[in-house]
Amino acid sequence: MSDHPSYHMTPEEFRRLGYRLIDWIADYEQRVADLPVLSRAEPGSIRAQLPAAPPEQGEALDRVFEDLERIILPGITHWQSPNFFAYFPANTSGPSILGDLLCSGLGVQGMLWATSPACTELETQLLDWMAELLALPAEFRSAGAGGGVIQDSASGAALCAIIAARERKTGLVSNESGCDGRLTAYASTEAHSSIEKAIKIAGIGRKNLRLIPVDERSAMRTGELETAIRTDIAAGRLPFFVSATIGTTAANGLDPLPEIGRIASQNGLWFHVDGAMSGTAALCPEFRYIQEGLEFADSYCTNPHKWMFTNFDCDCMFVRDRSALIRALSILPEYLRNRATESGAVIDYRDWQIPLGRRFRSLKLWFVLRHYGREGLQYHIRRHVALAQEFAGWVTAHPDFELALPPPLNLVCFRHRGGEAANQAILDGINRSGKAYLSHARLAGQLTLRLCVGQTRTEAEHVKAVWQLIQQAAAAWQKTPSPKSRGK
Amino acid sequence: MSDHPSYHMTPEEFRRLGYRLIDWIADYEQRVADLPVLSRAEPGSIRAQLPAAPPEQGEALDRVFEDLERIILPGITHWQSPNFFAYFPANTSGPSILGDLLCSGLGVQGMLWATSPACTELETQLLDWMAELLALPAEFRSAGAGGGVIQDSASGAALCAIIAARERKTGLVSNESGCDGRLTAYASTEAHSSIEKAIKIAGIGRKNLRLIPVDERSAMRTGELETAIRTDIAAGRLPFFVSATIGTTAANGLDPLPEIGRIASQNGLWFHVDGAMSGTAALCPEFRYIQEGLEFADSYCTNPHKWMFTNFDCDCMFVRDRSALIRALSILPEYLRNRATESGAVIDYRDWQIPLGRRFRSLKLWFVLRHYGREGLQYHIRRHVALAQEFAGWVTAHPDFELALPPPLNLVCFRHRGGEAANQAILDGINRSGKAYLSHARLAGQLTLRLCVGQTRTEAEHVKAVWQLIQQAAAAWQKTPSPKSRGK
Repeated sequence: MSDHPSYHMTPEEFRRLGYRLIDWIADYEQRVADLPVLSRAEPGSIRAQLPAAPPEQGEALDRVFEDLERIILPGITHWQSPNFFAYFPANTSGPSILGDLLCSGLGVQGMLWATSPACTELETQLLDWMAELLALPAEFRSAGAGGGVIQDSASGAALCAIIAARERKTGLVSNESGCDGRLTAYASTEAHSSIEKAIKIAGIGRKNLRLIPVDERSAMRTGELETAIRTDIAAGRLPFFVSATIGTTAANGLDPLPEIGRIASQNGLWFHVDGAMSGTAALCPEFRYIQEGLEFADSYCTNPHKWMFTNFDCDCMFVRDRSALIRALSILPEYLRNRATESGAVIDYRDWQIPLGRRFRSLKLWFVLRHYGREGLQYHIRRHVALAQEFAGWVTAHPDFELALPPPLNLVCFRHRGGEAANQAILDGINRSGKAYLSHARLAGQLTLRLCVGQTRTEAEHVKAVWQLIQQAAAAWQKTPSPKSRGK
Repeated sequence: MSDHPSYHMTPEEFRRLGYRLIDWIADYEQRVADLPVLSRAEPGSIRAQLPAAPPEQGEALDRVFEDLERIILPGITHWQSPNFFAYFPANTSGPSILGDLLCSGLGVQGMLWATSPACTELETQLLDWMAELLALPAEFRSAGAGGGVIQDSASGAALCAIIAARERKTGLVSNESGCDGRLTAYASTEAHSSIEKAIKIAGIGRKNLRLIPVDERSAMRTGELETAIRTDIAAGRLPFFVSATIGTTAANGLDPLPEIGRIASQNGLWFHVDGAMSGTAALCPEFRYIQEGLEFADSYCTNPHKWMFTNFDCDCMFVRDRSALIRALSILPEYLRNRATESGAVIDYRDWQIPLGRRFRSLKLWFVLRHYGREGLQYHIRRHVALAQEFAGWVTAHPDFELALPPPLNLVCFRHRGGEAANQAILDGINRSGKAYLSHARLAGQLTLRLCVGQTRTEAEHVKAVWQLIQQAAAAWQKTPSPKSRGK
């Protein structure tokens, strides 16, 4: 609502409410550690508190702050809590929030270079900075035939890579006449679900995605990859794409890139690498071994919106040959024609992604890189890895617990030795307590607990506290009277 | 940079910089009318001012404000200028910027209901509010078998609709075994480029998208649609999808929904309707004629991020049968399993979209709806349409100009009678002046100027000013000595 006859918010009102919201967010960061991490809302309980009908007249947004506290906050699972150890993190930070605010305030569309040159050029430069910070292969930088782009997510990056691969293999015939039914793709059984989803979307068909088994460390068995490709070729199929993961979702497994790269190259496959969370570790030289072999990849993605203090969405995708991506995704209707595009001297990121429109997402990454610098980022990545390794040490030392596999970085997969019921009871007990949030995986058929250290404000005290909680939950389970609930 | 040993931004620093940025945005809205609308940057000129290497140490973000003024702002094409009349608008507003800021501050992931129930439930409720405000068919509301979801863009909505349609037609066989090569889709020659792009991505093939000619008002010729479908069926093809547009990008043409709906229904096609910009007009009862026949549609999308004062990205997509969408896009890896999902009592929006992750985008829409109310939004839509109609009147009354077609709403397509060279000279003259920004289209082979009134702060004075500029540019062209540049 506004007193201004135009109904627009006045500058004074915007300043007053803006300051108030900045304060609210600063306070939220301070108190979030004390809120129940996993929301206790029941299905439908949030909607029940919202009016059934939309507002007829506008109102002062001050009242939204009341509803925010009363209705929204109890329905939030607090991804920004230092006690959030579930999934992969989606951490953020002050500089990122401010960079995103600037993006909203400028409100530009970056679909074409011409629709805001700074939106395109800052992004290209920042992706080169990221390539430098992560010590990525030179092929991924914009000076040569490659380059980087910000995608919405690793899902979007995978879909773009698959389309580019499909069109490279079929000489643009799939785009023109429909997907070639002989195409086959490869990933490990531990690859992220977005690979299968993208394969389905792209018209390849789930059956034509070969899921290659993994070893005890969740790494793809490359012998089986090679066999699968040979079998397909012999059967007249057209192998076109392989996706490897550095840091699988369930267990942070590291696929052997050099070997997969060799196989991809020998058989003419597009080699995509998904480093959604763990790729960030390459900020530190001592962790760069995880991306050994990346120089064979055609495309790579890693998400600053997971572990690099940058708001979702910000996936950095790099390609070796940008023309393969652009050819596959390009459209140029008359109403988007312009001199800059036709000069060939500029990048139009519209042709590097699924949608047409795009936000000025590089601003938040710019704010993060300038605020922290390489030094600040390295400090936190090292700290998170050290905390996870310390936790793994406690697990190993405890008679009732075991590691599911040695944790390479910041994700620890572990189990209580009491079996399925014990682990389920521990997981439920902790998550219901609201004091921390863990998630689970199933590794080699066994229910496994996952603890991922990557939230912005997670410190030693939070990791110590969750370990106490885990031991308490285990003790509570051991005291459970019913033998039924003592598991299989 | 931060004095805090952890390198994180302190709450005090966040408040200080946050206030400063809020002030900057409030000031930007005041001064943007005076900035050159179309950026005058030369290719590479922004990058040349950025350091080649990423920062080693962090620094105070105050210095970013200097670079923002010096480097970024000259590279911005100001979509938030009241003198922006190009493309479709991507307008925003104070309440939307604040809602988006809250989204960044909370930093939640809404992929599953469980990962933040409020993120899902507010969205479902708001999409029902939108259905009410726009008087959409009851089938699109969540109380029945349908419902709404926020997509990144109309491109994303189109791709999801095409995948759902593909799988409905082939009984999920395309997802499983690869795209059925017999599938054919339909849209008019004036449909948005995202339809063709999605058809290619989905593995259908561009050749299997039939582009149906339009009449002199850019509306699909339904007789030709019916003929094309019959011909395809006779040839053993599988027609599965038709997209209609209310408000085509070039000329704001309105496809005849009732007739297309009848044809789609009789032939078992999924009927998608794209109302990206113009759908917002249905906030006002007097413009609802544009969506007559929408009750036959299987899916519909309209973008508050275009003409409804809500930051990109915010596309509202509605479906009649949510299960068709979910079945086509669903994945459920073990690590995402949870009790709420398995109870069937909740919506997991992950299965309604291409990516897995998602922002809390409904917050900005909530802020906009509560700030303006139905009343405030209607006021502005009516005002924009009235301003565009007034402009069209001036064009009609001027001996040297003509309308390309009668403008139904807020987009006027017009030409100088001097032909290609005259119109190109007018377009270039205005856009180079920095005083306003128009874009163009080619209608029936003729270069046509487009003036779209939809920017948040555009008032009568701005429309009057651009009409003066247009007449001045035409006069300047008429005085051009060289006959060469006087065109064909």
